[in-house]
Amino acid sequence: MTHFTEQQDSGRQFIGGERVAEGERKLVSLCAANGQPSGYRFYQGTATEVDRAALAAARAFPAYSQTDAAQRADFLAGIADELDALGDEFIALVAAETALPVARIQGERARTSGQMRLFAALLRRGDFYGARIDSALPHRTPLPRPDLRQYRVAIGPVAIFGASNFPLAFSTAGGDTAAALAAGCPVVFKAHSGHMATAEWVGRAIERARVKHAMPAGVFNMLYGGQIGADLVQHPEIKAVGFTGSLAGGRALFDLAMRRPQPIPVFAEMSSINPVVVMPQALSSGAERIAQDLAASFTLGCGQLCTKPGVIIGVRSSNFERFVNKLCQEVTSSPAQTMLNPGTLQSFQQGIIALEQHPRIERIAGQSGVAEQASAQLFRADIALLLDQSPLLQEEVFGPVAVVVEAANEAELFQALQGLQGQLTATLIGEEAEIAQAHSLTQLLTHKAGRLIINGYPTGVEVCDAMVHGGPYPATSDARGTSVGTLAIERFLRPVCFQNYPQILLPDALQDTNPLNLLRLVNGVYTRESL
Amino acid sequence: MTHFTEQQDSGRQFIGGERVAEGERKLVSLCAANGQPSGYRFYQGTATEVDRAALAAARAFPAYSQTDAAQRADFLAGIADELDALGDEFIALVAAETALPVARIQGERARTSGQMRLFAALLRRGDFYGARIDSALPHRTPLPRPDLRQYRVAIGPVAIFGASNFPLAFSTAGGDTAAALAAGCPVVFKAHSGHMATAEWVGRAIERARVKHAMPAGVFNMLYGGQIGADLVQHPEIKAVGFTGSLAGGRALFDLAMRRPQPIPVFAEMSSINPVVVMPQALSSGAERIAQDLAASFTLGCGQLCTKPGVIIGVRSSNFERFVNKLCQEVTSSPAQTMLNPGTLQSFQQGIIALEQHPRIERIAGQSGVAEQASAQLFRADIALLLDQSPLLQEEVFGPVAVVVEAANEAELFQALQGLQGQLTATLIGEEAEIAQAHSLTQLLTHKAGRLIINGYPTGVEVCDAMVHGGPYPATSDARGTSVGTLAIERFLRPVCFQNYPQILLPDALQDTNPLNLLRLVNGVYTRESL
Repeated sequence: MTHFTEQQDSGRQFIGGERVAEGERKLVSLCAANGQPSGYRFYQGTATEVDRAALAAARAFPAYSQTDAAQRADFLAGIADELDALGDEFIALVAAETALPVARIQGERARTSGQMRLFAALLRRGDFYGARIDSALPHRTPLPRPDLRQYRVAIGPVAIFGASNFPLAFSTAGGDTAAALAAGCPVVFKAHSGHMATAEWVGRAIERARVKHAMPAGVFNMLYGGQIGADLVQHPEIKAVGFTGSLAGGRALFDLAMRRPQPIPVFAEMSSINPVVVMPQALSSGAERIAQDLAASFTLGCGQLCTKPGVIIGVRSSNFERFVNKLCQEVTSSPAQTMLNPGTLQSFQQGIIALEQHPRIERIAGQSGVAEQASAQLFRADIALLLDQSPLLQEEVFGPVAVVVEAANEAELFQALQGLQGQLTATLIGEEAEIAQAHSLTQLLTHKAGRLIINGYPTGVEVCDAMVHGGPYPATSDARGTSVGTLAIERFLRPVCFQNYPQILLPDALQDTNPLNLLRLVNGVYTRESL
Repeated sequence: MTHFTEQQDSGRQFIGGERVAEGERKLVSLCAANGQPSGYRFYQGTATEVDRAALAAARAFPAYSQTDAAQRADFLAGIADELDALGDEFIALVAAETALPVARIQGERARTSGQMRLFAALLRRGDFYGARIDSALPHRTPLPRPDLRQYRVAIGPVAIFGASNFPLAFSTAGGDTAAALAAGCPVVFKAHSGHMATAEWVGRAIERARVKHAMPAGVFNMLYGGQIGADLVQHPEIKAVGFTGSLAGGRALFDLAMRRPQPIPVFAEMSSINPVVVMPQALSSGAERIAQDLAASFTLGCGQLCTKPGVIIGVRSSNFERFVNKLCQEVTSSPAQTMLNPGTLQSFQQGIIALEQHPRIERIAGQSGVAEQASAQLFRADIALLLDQSPLLQEEVFGPVAVVVEAANEAELFQALQGLQGQLTATLIGEEAEIAQAHSLTQLLTHKAGRLIINGYPTGVEVCDAMVHGGPYPATSDARGTSVGTLAIERFLRPVCFQNYPQILLPDALQDTNPLNLLRLVNGVYTRESL
């Protein structure tokens, strides 16, 4: 399978604009479908290389954080162009490493370059600055007010850990990288072991854009290998962390970051079971259609999506039984799929075994046993497990599986939802009339999840201004952030106030003449006017 | 000294709208000036009461977080009115508990009620919602876009720990409480042991406003006593923490919060030495005036301000010597002052001893020895201590003391500043011409501090939209926040996205008709138009 073009410096770390390797060449990129080498090998990153990468990012920080937003916008658009130009050989490589379908990879590439362009548009819009001006009041009594101006600056170098399931959109040039680079923060990226060659191609694309747009070396760094993540988040020059992955992995990095002499913010997107509530009237009129759509949603991409609906809840009725029967049919007829890598398959199988072994959970569709591909599964759990907040139902099982839960009545359903931990999403499927009555239900879910969906499915995550891909713990480690959409930039910015500054020292965003034509909060009023 | 009016329920905890006490009445409010009882005694809060208070806040949360912003604005304005109505007996009580001058307390009361009204204005302005709408694109290919709308909601009940040094503005009804209540978060306040009776009067004022404005019981709770803070930040119903105080205290609470099964955000404002750089030309023309102003700043309020300038740095010159000599004169003639309480005095004395005992630090003004009041002190330290990042110069000594540091040249000064940890403020004193050349210096300081001041002194902290009272660790535990000014509300909000929601279920802030007349980001453009 060594049919891909390997360049001379292949397999090395990306540090400060160079490709370096001091460790041993022992990490092997594998084809997801058969576990065979794809033909790429990588040097294990060393502790020294972690240090060098963090220092390279720190050296780039003063200059990069002071670049004009328009310059960074051009740089991000340049990365987008480079991503779009990655050709068929690249798509084939990603497919080999991840077993994802070619059409999905092409779509994800467009999503990833589109994401870069959206952040470029954000930079040109300028609202991320959060510019605020309170003019001096020299004659105020009892005390005068000085001139005070606030905007947001980059927090510092960011360590980013990409996800296996989106080798482009949540990886090397994914949402966290786009947000950090847009904010003015250099990045040290930890390449995911599941798509190391993909990461290398994307890393080269970023570096080409960096050189072309004359950005400082060290704005982008990437390291390969296990055991380096802990060193990275503990490095004194790293000032924030972005992570997408498992609860165990995210929490471990979070704990390390919080125990530093100087703790740093960590945004880890981790675990969500994404509850879907199916309401009685909807089931009365459309049980079969809903079952089809829902099964399609939780088996989409082999269930390897953070927003996969993992728990389906409804009130006992003959329609609910009809719905569950149809769900079973859909699951039974759903073809087995290859997972992203053997580790993911193993985790899925372990999750299934845990569900199988629980006395109050029964399999109602799908096959038991270990196989080389993942086949869809449906379980049914006693609602007592939700009411008692059993950990088994609170933690996601990554893969094509869902658990159906039946409530005796609406009150019990409400109570079961109250016991849920934090979620990325929560979904209501209902007829217009019953939805209109669902005020208390949606208010409850507002306090549980980052995104609430009515009559849709959570597995599509739009990249836009209004998206929230976040939520209370354990969905993420910080409910105040999102890792998708333009609000994601705020995780990597902090406010600074300038008091009594002369115009010449003020950033463009805060000068009297408003040269960037920003919408600014001036003395309590939003305006684009000059002072 | 028991001349203050004590009400029947005095000394009890504030829990869920009631005054309760199950512990022993053993906490004694003391007069700062003489250590004698002020006449008020308080029941030590118990673990059960912590639990009850957190549960009361949690019960209030759903209803309170769903109140209209306008209702909360009225409530906050009501608290402001109650604070303003606290009469001379109250002012005398605060003065007795804290030894702060009456004029200062009157000013602080006005600041505190003004702060409540500023948050009320913020609530009426509505920008804290961060409303964003991306309309549905049903005909987009390859996939349609659903309707997506985002705004910010309250994070949940907040535990707040007030500071000793601002018994009103950073305490019971202070900035953190104002920000949390504005956000829609119920508060559990830990009363400071240094002004327990003050806290009780203010707590009653909040409760009167709560009842008058028909807000749910449990929106405000207050507990007295030591050892309850740890239980409070670990309570599962507490969703965020606000703290102002020492580095040791803030870090201990931070660590507890981060080790919870579900970690929660902590904004702790802790330690800052607030460097002041005096530039050569300024010293040439105004060494004496600058020395007077600077000494006034670091002895103001007995040096008991978070933004007290603790380190003064300049380049060696005869003018710098003249400046230092004048500083010494000012310090020598500065009268001794009573500190907030015996513990604060003891900490100050310990800090002075640590400076005295260091071989590379010498006292250049002020007297050694232990006394009942704090007398101003000035030390001079070898710049090597800054270059080597000696912890002794990095941690604030709370009280009327500053350390002068002389650099051999500008390069050494720059290097010394590079070694500084995070700060609340950093100040440059210079003539116009040298300030205009100070680009690299101000850019360096931008990455060190939350607020940068030119030709002013950091000890005035304006409450306004543009203020930042925050900064990198150890100034605070989260550089992305501020505890003064309207941006403080963002610490207690999180974004939520509504996908495909019918108008009837959308909050006012996100409805098509824009009933709140908000400035919203609609399809990438800021507008007040309806959809």
